[in-house]
Amino acid sequence: MKSPKQNDTTLDKETVAMAKDGEKIITRVLPGFMELLPADQIVFNQMLDTIRGVYEKYGFVPIDTPVIERADVLFAKVGGETAKQIYRLTKGENELALRFDLTVPLARYVAEHAADLAFPFRRYHIGKVYRGESPQKGRYREFYQCDIDIIGNGSLSLVNDAEIPRVIYDIFLRMNIGSFLIRINNRKLITGLLNSAGVGELAVEVMRTIDKIEKVGESEVRKNLVELGLSDDAVKNIFDFLAIRGSTDEIVRKLGLLGVTDEKFTTGVLELTEVVKYMRALGMPDSSFAIDLSIARGLDYYTGTVYETTLVDYPGVGSVCSGGRFDNLAEKYTDKKLPGVGISIGLTRLFYQLKEAGLVKIEASTLAKVLVIPFVSDLSVPLEIATMLRQQGFPVEVYLEEGKMKKKMAYADKIGVPYVVLVGEDEISSGMFAVKNMSTRQQTSLVKDQIYSHIQKGK
Amino acid sequence: MKSPKQNDTTLDKETVAMAKDGEKIITRVLPGFMELLPADQIVFNQMLDTIRGVYEKYGFVPIDTPVIERADVLFAKVGGETAKQIYRLTKGENELALRFDLTVPLARYVAEHAADLAFPFRRYHIGKVYRGESPQKGRYREFYQCDIDIIGNGSLSLVNDAEIPRVIYDIFLRMNIGSFLIRINNRKLITGLLNSAGVGELAVEVMRTIDKIEKVGESEVRKNLVELGLSDDAVKNIFDFLAIRGSTDEIVRKLGLLGVTDEKFTTGVLELTEVVKYMRALGMPDSSFAIDLSIARGLDYYTGTVYETTLVDYPGVGSVCSGGRFDNLAEKYTDKKLPGVGISIGLTRLFYQLKEAGLVKIEASTLAKVLVIPFVSDLSVPLEIATMLRQQGFPVEVYLEEGKMKKKMAYADKIGVPYVVLVGEDEISSGMFAVKNMSTRQQTSLVKDQIYSHIQKGK
Repeated sequence: MKSPKQNDTTLDKETVAMAKDGEKIITRVLPGFMELLPADQIVFNQMLDTIRGVYEKYGFVPIDTPVIERADVLFAKVGGETAKQIYRLTKGENELALRFDLTVPLARYVAEHAADLAFPFRRYHIGKVYRGESPQKGRYREFYQCDIDIIGNGSLSLVNDAEIPRVIYDIFLRMNIGSFLIRINNRKLITGLLNSAGVGELAVEVMRTIDKIEKVGESEVRKNLVELGLSDDAVKNIFDFLAIRGSTDEIVRKLGLLGVTDEKFTTGVLELTEVVKYMRALGMPDSSFAIDLSIARGLDYYTGTVYETTLVDYPGVGSVCSGGRFDNLAEKYTDKKLPGVGISIGLTRLFYQLKEAGLVKIEASTLAKVLVIPFVSDLSVPLEIATMLRQQGFPVEVYLEEGKMKKKMAYADKIGVPYVVLVGEDEISSGMFAVKNMSTRQQTSLVKDQIYSHIQKGK
Repeated sequence: MKSPKQNDTTLDKETVAMAKDGEKIITRVLPGFMELLPADQIVFNQMLDTIRGVYEKYGFVPIDTPVIERADVLFAKVGGETAKQIYRLTKGENELALRFDLTVPLARYVAEHAADLAFPFRRYHIGKVYRGESPQKGRYREFYQCDIDIIGNGSLSLVNDAEIPRVIYDIFLRMNIGSFLIRINNRKLITGLLNSAGVGELAVEVMRTIDKIEKVGESEVRKNLVELGLSDDAVKNIFDFLAIRGSTDEIVRKLGLLGVTDEKFTTGVLELTEVVKYMRALGMPDSSFAIDLSIARGLDYYTGTVYETTLVDYPGVGSVCSGGRFDNLAEKYTDKKLPGVGISIGLTRLFYQLKEAGLVKIEASTLAKVLVIPFVSDLSVPLEIATMLRQQGFPVEVYLEEGKMKKKMAYADKIGVPYVVLVGEDEISSGMFAVKNMSTRQQTSLVKDQIYSHIQKGK
């Protein structure tokens, strides 16, 4: 089987289709948009299917909201850089915009349909979102997000915070892309620590600063924290806290030894302990997760547990899946208090990164298991054989065009189909059909009824 | 099992979430956009899965193109009403627009990637498209199209025209929505008929006029044809032609008796005969299709075989799936001659119509087979049971919130889960767990290892 040519996702592709008889329209994909060849698309879709399958296995239900939202719905929940990146539409009587994530549509959906939903509302949503960022390697303007969230009506049990990483663990196991680590933290810890230093109101700013530690280094972060107005003592406490290392249980023990008596801090330790307990009860091995006190997540949105997931052998890839607990999903749209916890996989970027890292196995440009190749003018028998094999369970394609044996086999090679069934006059009159395994190049002569089981056995 | 409340697809819904402490943002869905509650969404997704599954069974490969295209790509292929309906985007350095179908993106894709594709290129594409039409019952501004097309490089065998309806036959059988009829015609017939009357150049206009016959009636169409400049003789010939009825074979015979000697007409008869022959070879029963000479399809795009599909018991629904053969897919983008044949299912509209006709069976607001309900403070055992059942193969949800038995069972009823497993202190100490079938309300006491097979047997 020939491996089909790989697509370079066309980010900088400048191919223009030009005609002799006049100018043709530019057909290259817009910068920042991913468009895959079929062989890549098949693998991409398999990943989507894996994610969806696991989400459903944990009892999440699908929703699908419009890509277009009222502009004021989106702008109510976002400011700064993200607001500038929103695609706006000029059409129609309403001010419109394309969604930039799946969380804002979820908030609107829950506010709108609350009376018809069962709570806790466990939904998954897989869809495209739009951000007009400057295109660069691995950054896309249109990309898939695959989100799960559990939304409570008024309250939501902490045990949900343990189920979210369990779902992610299942997905990354099935994706078979090497070892990964789900890193968890609880934002109440650093908030409590800052409270006890009398600078609790700076919590969000401090977390945003700490979040950059891997990028800018420790001394720069120290400097920035002092600039924020923190005392040397407070900065020392923060770095003592961040320096805590060890197994999950050791970290919990060391947190207790810090002597911080702030109630929020204590709650954070209890929550983290509880979440770890239930991650274990859900069957997650200790090797699959770690407490990482340096994870803060830039967004001021999160209020408790936070998650990041990294590929152990590819640290440069960064977090491939992040999320956390929040106190109130939809305060802009409803009076209901809707706490929740959720996580998101940015599949477009992940696919790009996995492919760059050589972790995506591209196999064939077809989903067909069998290509029936006729060598007769009347195609009735080849079509009957294809119908039989489809009914028995295989995806099957028939090569319907005219041409020489060489051209037809070249097509079979190009699409990478695993088996070919040859149907000519001799085969029809003898009732014995040639079945060719395209990997081994072995050819076997079989009666019609034997073809399925022969291929099914991988012969 | 309680049937969950159905969603009225919110077309005219004017619910606004208002808060006491200030104005809240309007959360109602934009007019002309479909947004479903989970119970409906589950059925909608099952239909999408059915369509995709059949497309793949026939060897079609997936593609997924950006929703946003360069405006000139879209406007090159469209004019008139459709052009006015295109959503344009103001952002960025390029003039952008949202795709209004999946055929134009296919043309661009094939022109751009021709060198990397195997021909015939058999692709399926399931995605949302956008048309700013005036919203009305059953018409949507955002809707799913589910397309297959087979594109040849230079030429494409007529046998492909028989495979397309075979795929559709499979899909509608599996959807289980009553009897349906795939109506086929060949545009070469009417074109040839007009050629022989010396008015071949009017073919497109005439077909457009004939297409309205069910809407405006025969006498109006006669009048319009005369206005187009057709002689009384020519009009009579057209109506003699349209009046032909009978079984598939009778129609072919009667077409021969018309005495039209134009070459295009003769080719049309031969093509229709050949397509019917291969539809039968592919196992389609004669009851599933019919030659219908009145089908013209408004678009000037089609050049040979055309298809429409109707639900026999719901003629008012109109065509639920249409398509046809075209001579050249991408002449605006490339010099390559790319003939093709394809068909499209507009699933958003179809879903709406099937639901209106009572043909959509809404079952539950959950995909979970089992809901584990704990009555203990330590949730470890309930979580272990859920993990076990998931590993055995069921989608499982655990009710993690605190509350009374009544509240927990009300949730189980509301989501419509088929089975509940109750886990309390007594169950844990005795090792016997109560499994409740929510349809029969039968409760059975079982050891852990018996739960899966008990439920699997439907007890």
